[in-house]
Amino acid sequence: MHLSIICRILGILLMLFSFTMLPPIIVSLIYDDGQLAPFVDAFGLILFIGLLVWFPVRNKKEDLRVRDGFVITVLFWLVLSLSGSIPLYVSDNPSMSFVDAYFESLSGLTTTGATVITGIDDLPKSILWYRQQLQWLGGMGIIVLAVAILPMLGIGGMQLYRAETPGPVKDNKLTPRITETAKALWYIYLGLTTVCGIGYWLAGMTPFDAITHSFSTIAIGGFSTHDDSIGYFDSTAIELIAVVFMFLAGVNYALHFFSWRQRSIFVYLKDPEFQFYAFVVGGVSVITISVLIATETYEVSEAITSGLFEVVSIATTTGFATADFANWPLVLPFLLFVVAFIGGCAGSTGGGMKVIRVLLIYKQGLREVKRLIHPNAVIPVKLGRKPVPDRVIEAVWGFFSVYMFMFVFMLIILLATGLDQVTAWSAVGACINNLGPGLGDVAYHYGDLNSTAKWVLCFAMLLGRLEVFTLLLLFTPAFWRH
Amino acid sequence: MHLSIICRILGILLMLFSFTMLPPIIVSLIYDDGQLAPFVDAFGLILFIGLLVWFPVRNKKEDLRVRDGFVITVLFWLVLSLSGSIPLYVSDNPSMSFVDAYFESLSGLTTTGATVITGIDDLPKSILWYRQQLQWLGGMGIIVLAVAILPMLGIGGMQLYRAETPGPVKDNKLTPRITETAKALWYIYLGLTTVCGIGYWLAGMTPFDAITHSFSTIAIGGFSTHDDSIGYFDSTAIELIAVVFMFLAGVNYALHFFSWRQRSIFVYLKDPEFQFYAFVVGGVSVITISVLIATETYEVSEAITSGLFEVVSIATTTGFATADFANWPLVLPFLLFVVAFIGGCAGSTGGGMKVIRVLLIYKQGLREVKRLIHPNAVIPVKLGRKPVPDRVIEAVWGFFSVYMFMFVFMLIILLATGLDQVTAWSAVGACINNLGPGLGDVAYHYGDLNSTAKWVLCFAMLLGRLEVFTLLLLFTPAFWRH
Ligand SMILES: [K+]
Ligand SMILES: [K+]
Repeated sequence: MHLSIICRILGILLMLFSFTMLPPIIVSLIYDDGQLAPFVDAFGLILFIGLLVWFPVRNKKEDLRVRDGFVITVLFWLVLSLSGSIPLYVSDNPSMSFVDAYFESLSGLTTTGATVITGIDDLPKSILWYRQQLQWLGGMGIIVLAVAILPMLGIGGMQLYRAETPGPVKDNKLTPRITETAKALWYIYLGLTTVCGIGYWLAGMTPFDAITHSFSTIAIGGFSTHDDSIGYFDSTAIELIAVVFMFLAGVNYALHFFSWRQRSIFVYLKDPEFQFYAFVVGGVSVITISVLIATETYEVSEAITSGLFEVVSIATTTGFATADFANWPLVLPFLLFVVAFIGGCAGSTGGGMKVIRVLLIYKQGLREVKRLIHPNAVIPVKLGRKPVPDRVIEAVWGFFSVYMFMFVFMLIILLATGLDQVTAWSAVGACINNLGPGLGDVAYHYGDLNSTAKWVLCFAMLLGRLEVFTLLLLFTPAFWRH
Repeated sequence: MHLSIICRILGILLMLFSFTMLPPIIVSLIYDDGQLAPFVDAFGLILFIGLLVWFPVRNKKEDLRVRDGFVITVLFWLVLSLSGSIPLYVSDNPSMSFVDAYFESLSGLTTTGATVITGIDDLPKSILWYRQQLQWLGGMGIIVLAVAILPMLGIGGMQLYRAETPGPVKDNKLTPRITETAKALWYIYLGLTTVCGIGYWLAGMTPFDAITHSFSTIAIGGFSTHDDSIGYFDSTAIELIAVVFMFLAGVNYALHFFSWRQRSIFVYLKDPEFQFYAFVVGGVSVITISVLIATETYEVSEAITSGLFEVVSIATTTGFATADFANWPLVLPFLLFVVAFIGGCAGSTGGGMKVIRVLLIYKQGLREVKRLIHPNAVIPVKLGRKPVPDRVIEAVWGFFSVYMFMFVFMLIILLATGLDQVTAWSAVGACINNLGPGLGDVAYHYGDLNSTAKWVLCFAMLLGRLEVFTLLLLFTPAFWRH
């Protein structure tokens, strides 16, 4: 472990993060909402701590190893979520306990979007802005994590996307160095956010709502400035804009990058993960809309927009709501929840297990069937025309079973704290998949849960966002040996 | 496909099965319970159909291929469960619809033990005997399936147990030919049943109850001749005897075989699957008993016996009950249910995913963690000292994901028929794991479910018993090609 270099990076990170308090300070000044102090305090405190951590090791220069990468990635989210909770904890409106402030901050940064706050419409503007901004910043972190760091660490099959190994992106190397890769993708992220925000504004949102909702849309976060979420606006145009941008934000950013550079939409259409993603979202939308019409839950036109909106929102793990989907008839709430386990594409801001992994598991399942019929045949698993290395498939299996194991493990703890089964499983599912809203007692907010449950769910959000292994690895003795 | 040889085998099977109507006929005569007609009718009908199927092809001799093995295995359970439902359907006490009679028959033969009947204490003796006997016969079928047929077909990693390939049993080949292997194991099965029955009788059961409960204990079936199951006897001695024999019945029968032949108990202790099985059952027992004592659900002595009994009953997937475990506090019902997914050892009459598979998944998970730390190391997965071929591990992964997929798929259908979430998931879980009792509306019996749900659950029982792939394979076009 190279403690000094880790401290140097974290110190710089904290100092950078402190400056993200400036926009809410400006918002507070504009709206004169009396929340200047919490953000100014947080700004000073975080900057000071950052300096304190950075200054003693500012001149140390050592090479980072893969092992350090795991520690820094985990600390990144831990330290920033802790720092991010400061203004929420200090502020008296909303007045929050420490666990609530941390839960809200982490839920924002991991783009989960589970909230413990009720009466969101009445919150000060600066706090509203800040929550949305946390998600947007978290989304930026996720893109670096997903496109640059996880492939390098080889988490759960993501070495598939490692630039230097064979895989879908082999022939079209991303800009090789992490910082340049990140920059390119951030431009796309910023571009999508801008276009989405303008769209919302043209469709009738106030500039404040348009900007803040574009933040949480592109980050696949799901926070809103209204208790009724997107349903507040009661506008089909806004819902359709949200559908388009949630769907785009759930696509691998590498595809956006190549599509932009090659000025061609075929980049998307040729990608097996994108095909599967579009197929799942499309298929579940058709089923959902059909059931809503057949059960006469809505009129036909409302069934189509509400159905499409909720499916895209849950399937991408955004978690925006226009309808009370937790109370939709029969199997729909459960079905949508299962789709959230699939989640977004790898290299997007979406949560869940990621489309590519589910696709590989499905293909491996098919291969097993073929092998039973032809026991001696050599049958490769292919993505498009390219065979996938067995090593990658094994990593994906490992990911799947550990994901399921941790899901059941946390579910058992939540049940032990006294939650009912539907609340418990949907809460863990909504948090580990970075989805946000659950079913049962957590269909609207998480405020009424006990503290133990909230801490467990914080762990679940972090676990999901760090693709399980990055975090779990730090709990193994083998990692700390040497 | 070799239709004539398949018909020849099925014809013989039906004729043999018809003679299993004789014991209930004798019971009916002894107790004069007025149920002679249904069993005599069934005897004649099944024998006649068997003859009809067998006679035209009695002289055909062709070699069986692996492909035929799948068809025969599935038809074995389908045809026998259908035949087995005849006396239940024909009888007027209990008066059952066709779906109920089939559900009960299949539940017996697959040793699931889910029942649609209430008022079991008042049933005619011959019917009671018949239900228990169905489970015992099913158990015999499962042993052949697990020890001789599945390894040959290579289902879900079970080629590990194929006599001619490297694996735990390589050095101690089972008697090579299927019939002789089956015979040896049936002697063990019969021996265990006899000792268990004598034990029950000495502990105070009537001879009738002792025999019939020994049937359902060794078959890991869970049917009882009383509504209150084993709880009816209110005897610690009987409960402890049940615990011992349920535990033994959940062990791989190949271990019993070698332990007997080598006159050594070390055969068990050296086996990695047995070690893991004992560890899981022991560990969950300790947790359960602790929680029961801590929550003051029972006095200490009752907490120990009830806790131990329910854990062994659910973990082995027997499904006997002495206590209302579905209403135990907090997490216990869910925890026990999760353990049922692990189930018995491979080559036993137990259900679930099988201990060996869960052990291999766990070991593969550990390997993934090690690989993240040492990306270039070659790390084999080992059972004891022997490395497990990657091919087997891939098959186990395939099994796990298809098992989970089918679980969720059937759960969605059950929810669509209007069941609540707890009832639906526990019903599918109890049936696919061949466990029996569920939670919610199916904690006591399955009689109140709608017909669609019952048919889906029949499919689940069959799917679990046939280790998923054997049945699913028949639904793939590739299987029927050529
Ligand atoms: K979200
Ligand atoms: K059972």
